[in-house]
Amino acid sequence: MAYRALSEQEAVEYVKALPGLFNEGATLTSKEIGDGNLNLVFDIRDEATGKSVIVKQALPYARVVGESWPLTVDRARIESEALRIQHKFVPELVPQVYHFDQELALTVMENVGDHIIMRKGLIEGNRYPLFAKQIGKFLAHTLFYTSDLGASPFDKKALVGTFLNPELCKITEDLVFTDPYENAPTNDFNPLIQKEVEAIWNNKPLKLEIAKLKYDFLTRAEALLHGDLHTGSIFITPTSMKAIDPEFAYYGPIGFDIGAVIANLLLNFAGQHGLQKDQGERESYREYLLTTVEDVWNEFVSQFVQLWHRHAKERSAHVEGFWQSYVKRLIQDAAGFAGCKILRRVIGLAGVADLNSIEDPQTRAEAERLALAIGEALILGRGNVEESTDITDIVRTVTARFYQEATTV
Amino acid sequence: MAYRALSEQEAVEYVKALPGLFNEGATLTSKEIGDGNLNLVFDIRDEATGKSVIVKQALPYARVVGESWPLTVDRARIESEALRIQHKFVPELVPQVYHFDQELALTVMENVGDHIIMRKGLIEGNRYPLFAKQIGKFLAHTLFYTSDLGASPFDKKALVGTFLNPELCKITEDLVFTDPYENAPTNDFNPLIQKEVEAIWNNKPLKLEIAKLKYDFLTRAEALLHGDLHTGSIFITPTSMKAIDPEFAYYGPIGFDIGAVIANLLLNFAGQHGLQKDQGERESYREYLLTTVEDVWNEFVSQFVQLWHRHAKERSAHVEGFWQSYVKRLIQDAAGFAGCKILRRVIGLAGVADLNSIEDPQTRAEAERLALAIGEALILGRGNVEESTDITDIVRTVTARFYQEATTV
Repeated sequence: MAYRALSEQEAVEYVKALPGLFNEGATLTSKEIGDGNLNLVFDIRDEATGKSVIVKQALPYARVVGESWPLTVDRARIESEALRIQHKFVPELVPQVYHFDQELALTVMENVGDHIIMRKGLIEGNRYPLFAKQIGKFLAHTLFYTSDLGASPFDKKALVGTFLNPELCKITEDLVFTDPYENAPTNDFNPLIQKEVEAIWNNKPLKLEIAKLKYDFLTRAEALLHGDLHTGSIFITPTSMKAIDPEFAYYGPIGFDIGAVIANLLLNFAGQHGLQKDQGERESYREYLLTTVEDVWNEFVSQFVQLWHRHAKERSAHVEGFWQSYVKRLIQDAAGFAGCKILRRVIGLAGVADLNSIEDPQTRAEAERLALAIGEALILGRGNVEESTDITDIVRTVTARFYQEATTV
Repeated sequence: MAYRALSEQEAVEYVKALPGLFNEGATLTSKEIGDGNLNLVFDIRDEATGKSVIVKQALPYARVVGESWPLTVDRARIESEALRIQHKFVPELVPQVYHFDQELALTVMENVGDHIIMRKGLIEGNRYPLFAKQIGKFLAHTLFYTSDLGASPFDKKALVGTFLNPELCKITEDLVFTDPYENAPTNDFNPLIQKEVEAIWNNKPLKLEIAKLKYDFLTRAEALLHGDLHTGSIFITPTSMKAIDPEFAYYGPIGFDIGAVIANLLLNFAGQHGLQKDQGERESYREYLLTTVEDVWNEFVSQFVQLWHRHAKERSAHVEGFWQSYVKRLIQDAAGFAGCKILRRVIGLAGVADLNSIEDPQTRAEAERLALAIGEALILGRGNVEESTDITDIVRTVTARFYQEATTV
């Protein structure tokens, strides 16, 4: 069947024709629950049994803040194949794919609608004590087993070819690594921080480090990344976590995925300036966030190194001292990529609700200034990072200076 | 036509059927001039006009020192496509491809038989004053224009997919980066250097650096490499140079190709211990080789940086300070890869005539010890290399110590 966007009713018919998903003769309801900017997302449900699936169909364009541009529906293939691979390694942390249709750019998958979007949960002030363990496992397993450490060189190279993903990579290349650091038309920031943004555009040491990070993103084919692992791609409950939407999946530097998680925790940290009104509450929640940043890295590295010792196929991996120098580079990469991801969310095209939901523009500008200072410090300071507390120390130092200056002024 | 190895006569018939190569009714001679270990190579010639072409056909196996193993004929596709791309950038330095046949794994190309193999020329003591300029240009243009600096991200990613080349990469991964550094069955070295080889197997800091270099080879998709740029893949005359045989082409670290050229000049440098009997001649030729090593890097970097300033499409490339930090990393990579390529030629499966043609085993062992010492020093010292003279200084220091110790003993 040639590509066309399905209606709610057509989505039901499509699913009914697939064997093994619903009982014969079941009455199914269908509701389009996507935001319509990139994909159609149908929640298909048998009210009698409570069983449900998601049908996700890629649209041949992307819409962001009013702009619309064509975008390959091949991203549906990328997403469904990445989900399948990730699900193989960490089945409890990734929705199961039941069916993929190349022509319709359509995936039928497990419905994780009983979870909420983690970004929303953090904005509401929820705590997720299991999250660090869950995401640490997700990162360690999906990255290790698709890297040259855990995969055969033949399997790895075949996967590189499957996930070249040039169009979605270009979005990251432009929006994360290029446009925010010059006066580009895609930028979209609070006019009250014009001065701070211009200071970044003129910060030569910072731009040099970002150029190096971009080049690493372009060339370091280390592992199959999720590619867009922000807190809006993580569905969560107090006991369960699911990483979704890997349409940006491609072979890139491992630190990029880890940095994305850290960046989004820190964007919420900055947003607390306007989200939590009570100072005690704010400080307590920020402590929770910083501890989570530390735990995410610590969980990742402990599980990654265990996999390395037990399952690394690559003979050179077992050379004395190699894993230590490897993970040191990873945390430095993660700090640098986290910094870029923070800056782009403040300056560039796609903001985050952690900051954008602060209603008062003045207060929002303050939170954004803090975010920029944290992002910049992570990028410039990454060369000295060796442990997770080095990252949180940078954040603490920047934050203390921020409030000190606010008091002085 | 299904794959089958051609006879001399069939090669003539094949070429006659191609339009535009020879005059109608021409009388063609055909001679198989390959070594039969990997490929059939037919020299097809019209004696009346002097016009000739090469027909190169991949065999479905590889034979090295008596061993034979199956090897994909897809390498003929890799080779012909790489030749075409390289020819586009530096037409005077690469044989022109006239025709490629996927089924027969066969390429019809320009005959460069009026050139000689550079390794042979060096062993005979010839000097090639234009070589550094020629290979510098070859490296600068082919690597720049296929990198993220000189190619669009879409073209680059498509080329990555075209040149995954897992089977031939595996040969490099094993024979350059793994087997020589442990007691592997593929190794093949002079029994007289057993002690020095074992010292390398037990040298932990060295093995750590080699593991890092291997990981860079596996993951750093910087540019379309030739992949096997030793002096046996370079055809030369006093006025012309052609780089041939890019069947190992794939996306890897730029320093790997540069390091291959440097390594092979230095293998000849070590071989001079047995090749040139007269000490004055030997020292003079070694000076020529070291100057060539310096010139190769200097020519490469000067042309590469010119292309960068004039033609880099990547916006981040023009950030202040980026090209300087980039080329500094390149020369350090080149030094490290050169070291690995030297060690593998002494310890591993495929030796080089620069050393193997030294008849007296004792003298050969001395030359091999010098080569090992140079390779090791380049790998361990690469972190301090910033200019081409830093590389030749390492070689000079190691060589001086080598002859001093020889005198003392």
